[in-house]
Amino acid sequence: MASIEMIVAARARLRGHIRRTPLLSSPFLNEIAGRRLFVKAECLQHSGSFKFRGGWSAVSGLDPAVRARGVIAFSSGNHAQGVALAAKLHGVPSVIIMPSDAPKLKIDNTRAFDAEVVLYDRANEDRDEIGARLSAERGLTLIKPFDEPLVIAGQGTTGLEISEQAEDEGVKSAEVLVPCGGGGLTSGIALALEASAPSFRVRPCEPENFDDTTRSLASGRIERNASISGSICDAILTPQPGTITFPILERLAGAGIVVTEEEVLRAMALAFARLKIVVEPGGAVALAAALFHGGALESDNVIAVTSGGNVDAHIFAKALERFG
Amino acid sequence: MASIEMIVAARARLRGHIRRTPLLSSPFLNEIAGRRLFVKAECLQHSGSFKFRGGWSAVSGLDPAVRARGVIAFSSGNHAQGVALAAKLHGVPSVIIMPSDAPKLKIDNTRAFDAEVVLYDRANEDRDEIGARLSAERGLTLIKPFDEPLVIAGQGTTGLEISEQAEDEGVKSAEVLVPCGGGGLTSGIALALEASAPSFRVRPCEPENFDDTTRSLASGRIERNASISGSICDAILTPQPGTITFPILERLAGAGIVVTEEEVLRAMALAFARLKIVVEPGGAVALAAALFHGGALESDNVIAVTSGGNVDAHIFAKALERFG
Repeated sequence: MASIEMIVAARARLRGHIRRTPLLSSPFLNEIAGRRLFVKAECLQHSGSFKFRGGWSAVSGLDPAVRARGVIAFSSGNHAQGVALAAKLHGVPSVIIMPSDAPKLKIDNTRAFDAEVVLYDRANEDRDEIGARLSAERGLTLIKPFDEPLVIAGQGTTGLEISEQAEDEGVKSAEVLVPCGGGGLTSGIALALEASAPSFRVRPCEPENFDDTTRSLASGRIERNASISGSICDAILTPQPGTITFPILERLAGAGIVVTEEEVLRAMALAFARLKIVVEPGGAVALAAALFHGGALESDNVIAVTSGGNVDAHIFAKALERFG
Repeated sequence: MASIEMIVAARARLRGHIRRTPLLSSPFLNEIAGRRLFVKAECLQHSGSFKFRGGWSAVSGLDPAVRARGVIAFSSGNHAQGVALAAKLHGVPSVIIMPSDAPKLKIDNTRAFDAEVVLYDRANEDRDEIGARLSAERGLTLIKPFDEPLVIAGQGTTGLEISEQAEDEGVKSAEVLVPCGGGGLTSGIALALEASAPSFRVRPCEPENFDDTTRSLASGRIERNASISGSICDAILTPQPGTITFPILERLAGAGIVVTEEEVLRAMALAFARLKIVVEPGGAVALAAALFHGGALESDNVIAVTSGGNVDAHIFAKALERFG
């Protein structure tokens, strides 16, 4: 099980390898939010998202002999890049299984981290079967994107940084808003804050129509999304909360907050104008919640995690054209 | 005169008020540059540029009774916002004199920092006369944009951070590329590095046709630009090097590097894609030099300062459309 001890251990393994991302702020954003707003700019992390933390934690946590045989992951997005970069920097091979219709840019970026990208046909091939075969043949270790204690522990290091940086800013209590897909980042931060800043409370944030965690927290049991495509927030679309992550969220998180696509694009444009950072749509849902759903918040201080910045130029330009 | 002692003193006054901006990097950018490339992301500074350092240094360095009467600056850009925000946070009034045809956004941003913006007609009014009259009437202290030791000392704190952050990265020697207008940031960093990292050398970077510092360093005397408008790099267009800054550069800086507008736009698009930061054109000239003028460099390590991020959305979108 993921625990604060695992997060502290992950932090020691990550030291010197991950970037301590800054906690940003702007008086203009405070005014819109109607309270003090801080932004944990995890889009500035290596590989462009927090996923590098979990990737490094998982790869570095393997037994050296096991690690040397390599790792494998299923992902067309940020998890692929995080795992591939972590493997490359450990000098071990990585195999990333991606759908053949994944964006060329993401395939190229993953290959640029020396990963072997195995493409499969979504319609006619079973990715789990391909993964199982390759793992068995080569002794590769599967790195799951969120339902894996070592990954949750890596993401949780973000929470330790948040509590230290908030203390530097004189913040005694806060709601911490986190973009939530499978819940690896959200549950990791929740565990870290429980130990390091117990007066802070995590709030999962999701795009409309993909609010499985919000509904699951409300009903007390795991609820599924009707679909896992059809949102600009591609990085955080998962079928349902994880079986490891959900119990952590149920115990520690406040209610979820759901935002619209227009709010996400507005948040991206404001992050551009006021913080000078690039945030991808899925990475902007917590900032959108902080800016435009103040009625759902209780604290005088809110900390929003911007979890990734891997956005295509034309989508970013569209956000600027509409709301810049 | 500006000195390392003044920079160290400025750093003490700035502590807790300025942001220690991160030193970023990307394997993709290393590959383009053909060497290790680090980016000092000063676009993430409060007010969106390094100018807040100099503004805070100057305002905080005044005698309290003098400071209480307020400060005045001439600027339509980053210096205006840096001084206005520093004055606001000190609780003293600021007057910023801007041309009446300055972009509305910049006027609005400066007013949002509680500055009194005094507009003048470039064709029919003399801004120096307006400034002198207001200063005499109200006892305001003029904060010059670069030819002022307290301002140079504030900008120089960037150099102290660079030497510390480079040491953390194991960098023993490097060329430090800095966008250069009047030379306040470049000379401040040069003085800081002389004391804290003497094996580092500053290289001023400028846009084509506005290469007054490059030519002045080559000829050994102050050379002027033919014009001070007509470049997208508006933040760093000045008529000539400063009388305080130039002797510092002449003593400490390597040769200047001149980049094209297209290189600047490409650098902005790469900073978006690989570092997830927003850089304005004038703030991107050093990154452009690091990426595309490797032949002018000698060191295995290069550190490029991205000095500001205050760019209009349509100009940024244009860079992405062309080169994203």
